[in-house]
Amino acid sequence: MHVPKPVFHPPFNITRSSHVVMTVRDLKASKHFYTELIGLIVTQETADTVYLRGLEEACHHSLVLKKSATPEFLRIGMRVFTDDDLVKLEAWYKGQGLPTKWVEVPHQGKTLHTIDKAGMPLEFCATMTVVPRLVTQFPLFKGGCAHRLDHYQILSPDVQGACDFYMAQGFRLSEYVMADHEDEMMGIFLQRKGNPHDIVFFNGEGPRLHHFAYTTIDAGTLMRACDTAGNLGMGGIVERGPGRHGPGHAQYVYFRDPDGHRCELFTTHYQIMDIECEPIRWDKDSPLRKEIWGFPAVRSWVEDASNFAGLATKQPGLKEHPMTLEKFLAARAK
Amino acid sequence: MHVPKPVFHPPFNITRSSHVVMTVRDLKASKHFYTELIGLIVTQETADTVYLRGLEEACHHSLVLKKSATPEFLRIGMRVFTDDDLVKLEAWYKGQGLPTKWVEVPHQGKTLHTIDKAGMPLEFCATMTVVPRLVTQFPLFKGGCAHRLDHYQILSPDVQGACDFYMAQGFRLSEYVMADHEDEMMGIFLQRKGNPHDIVFFNGEGPRLHHFAYTTIDAGTLMRACDTAGNLGMGGIVERGPGRHGPGHAQYVYFRDPDGHRCELFTTHYQIMDIECEPIRWDKDSPLRKEIWGFPAVRSWVEDASNFAGLATKQPGLKEHPMTLEKFLAARAK
Amino acid sequence: MHVPKPVFHPPFNITRSSHVVMTVRDLKASKHFYTELIGLIVTQETADTVYLRGLEEACHHSLVLKKSATPEFLRIGMRVFTDDDLVKLEAWYKGQGLPTKWVEVPHQGKTLHTIDKAGMPLEFCATMTVVPRLVTQFPLFKGGCAHRLDHYQILSPDVQGACDFYMAQGFRLSEYVMADHEDEMMGIFLQRKGNPHDIVFFNGEGPRLHHFAYTTIDAGTLMRACDTAGNLGMGGIVERGPGRHGPGHAQYVYFRDPDGHRCELFTTHYQIMDIECEPIRWDKDSPLRKEIWGFPAVRSWVEDASNFAGLATKQPGLKEHPMTLEKFLAARAK
Amino acid sequence: MHVPKPVFHPPFNITRSSHVVMTVRDLKASKHFYTELIGLIVTQETADTVYLRGLEEACHHSLVLKKSATPEFLRIGMRVFTDDDLVKLEAWYKGQGLPTKWVEVPHQGKTLHTIDKAGMPLEFCATMTVVPRLVTQFPLFKGGCAHRLDHYQILSPDVQGACDFYMAQGFRLSEYVMADHEDEMMGIFLQRKGNPHDIVFFNGEGPRLHHFAYTTIDAGTLMRACDTAGNLGMGGIVERGPGRHGPGHAQYVYFRDPDGHRCELFTTHYQIMDIECEPIRWDKDSPLRKEIWGFPAVRSWVEDASNFAGLATKQPGLKEHPMTLEKFLAARAK
Repeated sequence: MHVPKPVFHPPFNITRSSHVVMTVRDLKASKHFYTELIGLIVTQETADTVYLRGLEEACHHSLVLKKSATPEFLRIGMRVFTDDDLVKLEAWYKGQGLPTKWVEVPHQGKTLHTIDKAGMPLEFCATMTVVPRLVTQFPLFKGGCAHRLDHYQILSPDVQGACDFYMAQGFRLSEYVMADHEDEMMGIFLQRKGNPHDIVFFNGEGPRLHHFAYTTIDAGTLMRACDTAGNLGMGGIVERGPGRHGPGHAQYVYFRDPDGHRCELFTTHYQIMDIECEPIRWDKDSPLRKEIWGFPAVRSWVEDASNFAGLATKQPGLKEHPMTLEKFLAARAK
Repeated sequence: MHVPKPVFHPPFNITRSSHVVMTVRDLKASKHFYTELIGLIVTQETADTVYLRGLEEACHHSLVLKKSATPEFLRIGMRVFTDDDLVKLEAWYKGQGLPTKWVEVPHQGKTLHTIDKAGMPLEFCATMTVVPRLVTQFPLFKGGCAHRLDHYQILSPDVQGACDFYMAQGFRLSEYVMADHEDEMMGIFLQRKGNPHDIVFFNGEGPRLHHFAYTTIDAGTLMRACDTAGNLGMGGIVERGPGRHGPGHAQYVYFRDPDGHRCELFTTHYQIMDIECEPIRWDKDSPLRKEIWGFPAVRSWVEDASNFAGLATKQPGLKEHPMTLEKFLAARAK
Repeated sequence: MHVPKPVFHPPFNITRSSHVVMTVRDLKASKHFYTELIGLIVTQETADTVYLRGLEEACHHSLVLKKSATPEFLRIGMRVFTDDDLVKLEAWYKGQGLPTKWVEVPHQGKTLHTIDKAGMPLEFCATMTVVPRLVTQFPLFKGGCAHRLDHYQILSPDVQGACDFYMAQGFRLSEYVMADHEDEMMGIFLQRKGNPHDIVFFNGEGPRLHHFAYTTIDAGTLMRACDTAGNLGMGGIVERGPGRHGPGHAQYVYFRDPDGHRCELFTTHYQIMDIECEPIRWDKDSPLRKEIWGFPAVRSWVEDASNFAGLATKQPGLKEHPMTLEKFLAARAK
Repeated sequence: MHVPKPVFHPPFNITRSSHVVMTVRDLKASKHFYTELIGLIVTQETADTVYLRGLEEACHHSLVLKKSATPEFLRIGMRVFTDDDLVKLEAWYKGQGLPTKWVEVPHQGKTLHTIDKAGMPLEFCATMTVVPRLVTQFPLFKGGCAHRLDHYQILSPDVQGACDFYMAQGFRLSEYVMADHEDEMMGIFLQRKGNPHDIVFFNGEGPRLHHFAYTTIDAGTLMRACDTAGNLGMGGIVERGPGRHGPGHAQYVYFRDPDGHRCELFTTHYQIMDIECEPIRWDKDSPLRKEIWGFPAVRSWVEDASNFAGLATKQPGLKEHPMTLEKFLAARAK
């Protein structure tokens, strides 16, 4: 196990996690979920695609729903600073022996498709169509009032490999979680945009997308989102929370959408861009290592994740067995 | 099963649930819990007793902790309007064949001890020593910022009997919950003070005190209380929530104190005093009957409760088996 | 100046302030204001009347708008406990030499019209048509999310007279504010329902209705209401606040509706029913006597109020000259 | 008037506004103000200096108080990414004919002092001593719970000049406000860190420091800060708000410290780093151009600002006369 040195002057400038593209079986049901419960705004919809954005976002979309019989993720999207960075990024990925392809994507500028070392499909662009920022258009606020796509979390059979691959591109490690029983990282928080999250990897069968996360206003809005789920007859899809993570500090709630894709709402992101801040290491015995109060996550939260289209998954070598609510309650019953 | 007619002109005027008196093994630990986490204020302490009140309360105490090797409840307290009501109340209880006794209680006016039909020890008084109301003394606010004792909930083997007994004294039924499989009430919300709660009874081995509840400011404060539990190294004592009940509408969180006594913080009490409001009936199939989102309560929440000193408990005739988190997860695993 | 003794056993049981009936010039504009900004729910509307209620209210209406060329208040409404109380109330008012009249009012039970000693038109009833309580129907929440009519405030040329008249009917004084320069009460908070407010009188030309007040959820909702006013193009109608009163402790914001009627949203009501709680006296030099932070109220807030239909107003004998924002700034400019 | 083109690849990498250094007459009083009301944490104090930081900050200080008979600002501080950037920055400033000086500053790495074109004293460094981030240490939260220094605002006689000077260094314009009566910018919001603010300039006698701003949790905390001011006997120092700006969208409150320095608490920063986002232009007639609700700012807020030590101020050429509360009320009185 090793923590790579940060690369302060990477060959290109990825600025932030930007969007996710996924398939859903029932566009109408998913649109209902993401607008009425999560609180996203529909920027545009066609016969087979719905483009959504958060209340704070001036970009055309941060979530793209496409109709399909097989619900999965097509791609995760990142922004680079300028189109020049795209060209440099293409060269670097090619140098890694990874396939790249220039594609046309509606409402995005010049766009490059590629994959990471683990085969996860990526999409990079520098620009999108600009639309109104609705951050103070309060009569449009609904349910969880999702403001801005902030990060996504990947289950990965090779967290160390992901750490090396992304840090070489300038991602910086804000926090990392050690396995309980081995000298390996079981979770890493990587960032480009100056808060703790852009892309997170945790040990598990993968690559699979565990969740994508939107920021929201405050704790009351997290609770309001849950209550709204009940109002909409979807009270059963609150999978975890509201609660508070130890690592990352986020105050969170996790929902499962109609196809089982997992969407997080959270608060309490902090600023982290100064280079003197070493990554926070969470060991087995660090205080507040797990959630700082309440029960462990239910097994479905630990194990379920969405596949990427056409990508076979692998089991991790690291046999970490996280506590689950089921195990916790069984142990308590004895 | 029958719902008694409300008694609009009872023989005496009970105004509200007022206080609870309990024993704890370690006064210092309990005081720490109730001040730093729950947010109560110490009005006074002696070698063996700590008197606490909520931030909004001008009365000397709403929670009395007494040191003892056996943690249990000594008594639940109610206010009557005037001392005249105490005299009338004594006569009525005597008429029911129940023992009554005038007692001296520090910082309370004329005080009567008695028991209800199930043997539960009660304490009535009309007045207490007045102390400053701290409702806008924000620098004193801590943790859950408990404002005011609102109600207590009793596990009872005879909910119908409790309903009859307390409604005869002018308590009004705001809501009641029917058993799933029998034509019996398994839960009743009774009130005197014009919001849904003063005393609540649910079916179970008893009489035992399930929890006592303080109001607090807002949803963010419920979350803050939980986070504070983590800060204080007590993250494990958040037993349920934050969540939202169906019946009663409360947004809640439940904590177990160092002796296992259960204390609730909640918001969303509503006003209910008009006589045209019939009690709300919650049937097996009523929408949002259980919690409106999330998982069922853990078994300990369903089953555990505090004994009353010297009072033998009985098993209920009604064999209602509420869903628990354990059963729910076991069923889901199949 | 004298503070009357509380009457613990009044001849009839008024339970709470209940509703206001007012005229507006443009029903559509007023309905827009009260639903989109204040957050009330329309229970019913006819060609010339709109009935509204708060999210928490199970009664048919707490605000009745009637179309008229002259915007004013027709009546303030109070609940009594039972119809028997109405009969007793009629007798008592007749005994005071005041006119009474039984009237038919849609969606109200037996209803009595009368006036108080100052001529202010009152309406009493024990029951209304019951409608659904929407307290957890979050998708219906808008703007200020008004939950429940709580109180109204009257400008009166005879605060002492109002105090005597209403306390004789069982109203209890929770707090009172002394004039700066004379030994007279310039403001009184009277309650029946167990929190500090049902009807408030302050010295001024009157009787005129200064404002009526709805409870809301929390501080964030007060701010949301203001922001929503901006969104609706009505940013100019936020007349005072958000702020915090000294007396009464309320966290408040005041709006002027399209006809200039004033509506308050507030939080932080506290429970007050125990008889040992003496009324709080606020003297000239009491700490936090005025608003506890920020500037004094603008002159319009101090002076403007709505007339009652057909009721001539009088100037007060007490020449109290409250500080205004205008005077405060003028003094500071020197 | 012209809006410079953004410089995407500036000669050095300034990452964010970082800290301010100011003098105060009474260290104890100022420390009390910034800890109990604003909610900052004391990292260190010496006989003549107090170092404070926000709850979220892992850097040694974002506010430095130094004792002096003359309260003023000594310097505003910015972070650069690495020490290499400092060297490049030195060269660039020298190239502009501006004086530079390497200095030793306690708890900061390599530090450069210089001034901008208007003479305003600047301090740049890449690193500081690292201290614990307290973002979830809730028992330490007080008053306004300031989390992180976000930006400062300067009154400047040459907004266009400041715009040119700072944009040449890679600052990007997120929003700008046009004068009402001339084709000139009267206010500009410049950012490096990806939200709308790092340094803001508004037209006025200067250079003077108008305010520095800390982020906080939510609207309720803004109100809590004000209430706490009242509790601490400083209710008069709430100069403006809580309110909502049009430009920048911030929900704000402004306080004057014991020496008259102005400190803002705010929420609702949004992410802005994508290059396709053109600066938002606010014209005289743009909807919600001024505060979106409520009254204009009091004259002291418009005109007062803190001097920089040893720096003579100039009157602006642009004779913009912003509305003030005093003018607004005078006009309304007519």
